[in-house]
Amino acid sequence: MVKTMEWNGETLKLIDQRRLPSELAFVTCESYIDVAEAIRKMIVRGAPAIGVSAAYGYVLGMKEYVRNNTKEDLEEYMKEVYNTLITARPTAINLKWALDRMSNVLNGNLDESLDALAERLEKEANDMANEDVQTNKRMGMNGAKLLPQRCTVLTHCNAGALATAGYGTALGVIRAAVEMGKEIKVYADETRPYLQGARLTAWELMEDGIDVTLITDNMAGWVMKQGKIDAVLVGADRIAANGDVANKIGTYSLAILAGHHDIPFYVIAPFSSIDLNIHSGKDIPIEERSREEITKIRDVDIAPKDVKVYNPAFDVTDNELITAIITERGVIRQPYLKNLSKLAENG
Amino acid sequence: MVKTMEWNGETLKLIDQRRLPSELAFVTCESYIDVAEAIRKMIVRGAPAIGVSAAYGYVLGMKEYVRNNTKEDLEEYMKEVYNTLITARPTAINLKWALDRMSNVLNGNLDESLDALAERLEKEANDMANEDVQTNKRMGMNGAKLLPQRCTVLTHCNAGALATAGYGTALGVIRAAVEMGKEIKVYADETRPYLQGARLTAWELMEDGIDVTLITDNMAGWVMKQGKIDAVLVGADRIAANGDVANKIGTYSLAILAGHHDIPFYVIAPFSSIDLNIHSGKDIPIEERSREEITKIRDVDIAPKDVKVYNPAFDVTDNELITAIITERGVIRQPYLKNLSKLAENG
Repeated sequence: MVKTMEWNGETLKLIDQRRLPSELAFVTCESYIDVAEAIRKMIVRGAPAIGVSAAYGYVLGMKEYVRNNTKEDLEEYMKEVYNTLITARPTAINLKWALDRMSNVLNGNLDESLDALAERLEKEANDMANEDVQTNKRMGMNGAKLLPQRCTVLTHCNAGALATAGYGTALGVIRAAVEMGKEIKVYADETRPYLQGARLTAWELMEDGIDVTLITDNMAGWVMKQGKIDAVLVGADRIAANGDVANKIGTYSLAILAGHHDIPFYVIAPFSSIDLNIHSGKDIPIEERSREEITKIRDVDIAPKDVKVYNPAFDVTDNELITAIITERGVIRQPYLKNLSKLAENG
Repeated sequence: MVKTMEWNGETLKLIDQRRLPSELAFVTCESYIDVAEAIRKMIVRGAPAIGVSAAYGYVLGMKEYVRNNTKEDLEEYMKEVYNTLITARPTAINLKWALDRMSNVLNGNLDESLDALAERLEKEANDMANEDVQTNKRMGMNGAKLLPQRCTVLTHCNAGALATAGYGTALGVIRAAVEMGKEIKVYADETRPYLQGARLTAWELMEDGIDVTLITDNMAGWVMKQGKIDAVLVGADRIAANGDVANKIGTYSLAILAGHHDIPFYVIAPFSSIDLNIHSGKDIPIEERSREEITKIRDVDIAPKDVKVYNPAFDVTDNELITAIITERGVIRQPYLKNLSKLAENG
């Protein structure tokens, strides 16, 4: 299986996702600054993968402290580590979730020795990585049951092994369905501007021998119209209490198109993507990225150099457009406000 | 103004639209074979521009015949010219419309001398080019009246000067509105895979000093949701008798998105784009183009080399999704079947 990230006790080795599929190259992070940079530059991306990477970044921060400092200003130092990592990207809530979990472990065990604390934090990050894969497998099972025996699904962006510690969210459902013996074909939106579908999803599914056909984003409606799509599967970067979903730009359009064609639209995300502190999607911060993501492709100009550009990296899909949200705790349907909070209490 | 094509009596000089906006380069067609090749390779594209180019290709064929042959097999020779040009691309009906108009002139005047016939055909092609610009200006006026004094429109592909003999269809409406003193802003879909929006529409509007913002195709829904778009303006490659519209891939999705947000969706096309011989859109042939258009951008690989690809160049938008079809003869609304045939009779 694709190893999105690998922790060796001292460094975090990441697949450099900017260079796929031309090249399977790696970046090794030796400090929390390196990890924040890797998240910011999208060497690693995908909400769950960002969360787990940040947890390892927190461990690297702690280890740097142990090597270089005394215990006196530990809390202040680790607050700086937390802040550097959490501001790397704004939309995915998993980043905050993972860092809060790490800082809770720190704050709950400040009476321990530095070495013991570092070890405890490292164990927490490792647990998080393992749990992420297990969570994805549970979501995969929950989602795969909803798919017919023979079916063709449409995906957007990369909600795969590369977006997580392994197995994937939306692609996890596809993997689980294949493991159950279902015949699954996939159409993958290329996902401009960053081309996660063309570069990552197509590559990852082909590595696993899963039947994938690449289309441009603007073909999705036409492919649906021709009756080729039985379900749409996407991930999430943050889900509000009312079930509104922030995800890769283009998800909102896809949800409308799916609704128009009576095709089920499923969001697959771990419970850590749900932000009950935010009532609706309009309060989710939407990252805008650089103009060059649109005007260039790998250093080749594809638009006038000085053209105005609008480049939101995410959009928000209204809860009423979503057939179900598939989590590791179960499948949630309307009314989301009630059903998400019920699931949170039972968690 | 942008000179999409220039006829000097001997050759047809075309802007090489593949190389814009990096470079304003030209290709000179010296034979009808050159013109067919230029259409096939999308050196020239856009339904009206293809039609007028093919007319000049027909003239070049005639001139080649006059230089090289006797009158005996003229009809057979020109049939070959016709067939070579008409098969260059399948979806745009303007190609057939223009070639039928040329061959009617030929067949109606076979008693003339070869030189007189060649001159007559050349005049017909020149008339067609001039009429195309006049037609666009009339459509522009008809469409501009429908836009509010201050408004932001969304366009797809390039339905501009570069898609016609000049002025443009959808962009002609924008130009006419600006000439009327309206304050018009434009969002341009980049239009994958061939990037006509990023490369051509953005360039052409910037040349005219019109305010244009480039977005990726999958941002259209999100931009509409934010209330930024007052109308969608697109061209057409072929319109069936019932008002179904074949146009650049992605148009169908846009029409659904516009409907969802209660935004008027206007198709702007000359009467020559209407094919009353075809009842509905499902009988319009849809060209599929090469996999490399999706997997590469200017020779740079952006997807796994051996990935499966689906690349329809056009889609069909159902007539019920279209607010109005704007032609040089007037603005047509539902029921299209009745209103299009009425307009044809009055034409």
